[in-house]
Amino acid sequence: MNLIMTLKEQLQRKIDLKTKPTGALGQLEDLALKLGLIQSTLSPELKKPTILVFAADHGITDEGVSLYPKAVTWQMAMNFCSGGAAVSVFCRQNGIAINVIDAGVDYDFPEELAIINAKIAKGTANMMKEPAMTLDQCRRAMETGAGYVAIEAEAGCNTIGFGEMGIGNTSPSSLLMHRFMNLPIEICTGKGTGMTGEKLDHKTAVLKAVSEKYDPKTPEETLATFGGFEIAMMVGGMLEAKRRGMVILIDGFIATAATLTAVRFDGSVKDNCIFCHTSEERGHQLILDYLEAKPVLNLGMRLGEGSGAAVAFPVIKAAVTFLNEMASFEEAGVSDKEK
Amino acid sequence: MNLIMTLKEQLQRKIDLKTKPTGALGQLEDLALKLGLIQSTLSPELKKPTILVFAADHGITDEGVSLYPKAVTWQMAMNFCSGGAAVSVFCRQNGIAINVIDAGVDYDFPEELAIINAKIAKGTANMMKEPAMTLDQCRRAMETGAGYVAIEAEAGCNTIGFGEMGIGNTSPSSLLMHRFMNLPIEICTGKGTGMTGEKLDHKTAVLKAVSEKYDPKTPEETLATFGGFEIAMMVGGMLEAKRRGMVILIDGFIATAATLTAVRFDGSVKDNCIFCHTSEERGHQLILDYLEAKPVLNLGMRLGEGSGAAVAFPVIKAAVTFLNEMASFEEAGVSDKEK
Repeated sequence: MNLIMTLKEQLQRKIDLKTKPTGALGQLEDLALKLGLIQSTLSPELKKPTILVFAADHGITDEGVSLYPKAVTWQMAMNFCSGGAAVSVFCRQNGIAINVIDAGVDYDFPEELAIINAKIAKGTANMMKEPAMTLDQCRRAMETGAGYVAIEAEAGCNTIGFGEMGIGNTSPSSLLMHRFMNLPIEICTGKGTGMTGEKLDHKTAVLKAVSEKYDPKTPEETLATFGGFEIAMMVGGMLEAKRRGMVILIDGFIATAATLTAVRFDGSVKDNCIFCHTSEERGHQLILDYLEAKPVLNLGMRLGEGSGAAVAFPVIKAAVTFLNEMASFEEAGVSDKEK
Repeated sequence: MNLIMTLKEQLQRKIDLKTKPTGALGQLEDLALKLGLIQSTLSPELKKPTILVFAADHGITDEGVSLYPKAVTWQMAMNFCSGGAAVSVFCRQNGIAINVIDAGVDYDFPEELAIINAKIAKGTANMMKEPAMTLDQCRRAMETGAGYVAIEAEAGCNTIGFGEMGIGNTSPSSLLMHRFMNLPIEICTGKGTGMTGEKLDHKTAVLKAVSEKYDPKTPEETLATFGGFEIAMMVGGMLEAKRRGMVILIDGFIATAATLTAVRFDGSVKDNCIFCHTSEERGHQLILDYLEAKPVLNLGMRLGEGSGAAVAFPVIKAAVTFLNEMASFEEAGVSDKEK
């Protein structure tokens, strides 16, 4: 018999000795175990939690795939910076830092605005005509995303969330899901900001036509063809966060499509991901099932921005809190169950 | 056409004008609406959130209906007071005050302990032999619970959670559910702290025998016959919280059984209740469905103590945060969707 317990066994033992019936904290116990394993410790901590919000525009919006005008991307980016967006107020409530990165918005922001200028181009190309990104653009976007994660890590952050803003970005996400999961595009296409009926049928037809135009072979080619600048930056950022052993907070449909893509580059990324919520967007649940993810919240949110990650954060923190702060049966002088 | 908008319409309009697609914050929007209606305001606030944890013992434990010895009730009450229990650490994390009330624990606590002595008796009677409480005990317990809620309200608290500790208290909860919902006792009986197989069959048989012994007519008689001191205090407390227009945070199976009971006294109590989570305990989902409740969390927790309410609190607070702090389309200069 091997008397040396693995870290996983030690974590499970620490969890089981807390003053509660075995398993009584449910999914919080799974989270505590996962966080301990990510950080290779019996006492994980979530340090300087930060959400990076990547914003970019999408050429495909020329085809009428969104209810909102493209200008909403830059307008919302400014709303993030002034603290009025959903993700801004939830980050403020929960002590999460937020950094907004212009990955490729079709707008010249005022220089004094608190947005990081990392523009690859003023929006991707219209996929109905040419691939969304060149391979070079896609690589630069991935490297840029990785670079901003590295900066946060070096400043002491070990918990990084990924949010996004980009009118039209459910379309690239649906296409990536369709290709990486080999599912019909109809199943992968949802209402986005609120499309229904004929408009949704039109969006689906556009994405079907786009899909039929291209046959990319590698994950990188697929991402370049169908992706977006904010999505490629998230993919690169997630890969870097995994390399650095960080806790990765995954938000909704678009961030999860980026995770699906990142997993094609490095399957182990998933080990560091906490899936924060299940979105109402059709397809999100399917990717989550495919990634064997069990999200923290299921509130029917479908906003993106990292808003679901920001709302879920205190629940994730509760896993660390109980693991580090709850008394054991022995410490509290509480009798364990009768054998 | 009536040009005066109701408060509900005004709240919905305020929610819809926030910088997000209509309905994109899902259940948080329902919560914001409910909180505004409870407090009769467009800008609800959760002031001095407090969880009252009522602890008591149960005579029915003599029949072997729990895996844990009865002494765990007083041991855990001391653990609450010293800050080592799950509810203690989650309250600390989330800025929630906690008060522990001895409703009827079979133990003499040291006088210096930070527990409120409101003992009705040292545990209820064994329902296999006589009703758990006399009518007089039940009334006193309800009044006591109401009194402690009144004290919190007068100190400025407008958001009150109900937690409990009592080895054996899933048994009275199952009996109350069985009677108030007219469901077979088998469906209402679950594993509690972890009973399975023959032990669970024994618990079910005990509760069936208890049920067959009595035929109480009124809600008060039913509560007295099958309830517990901590349950009766929660029922009285919930009724008082409703009278005072407070937000009521409902935890797991036992607190929800108390809510089911309180609703028999005053159906409008439900309007002020936020159901914080769905417990793994069999029967909880059934009561929630019966009360048409849509809980905030679904993490497979089954610990009681108010722990689910404490973990859910920041998610509930997020509803208030977005309603009060998010910018509207107009304020942020963001274009609304194309009509």
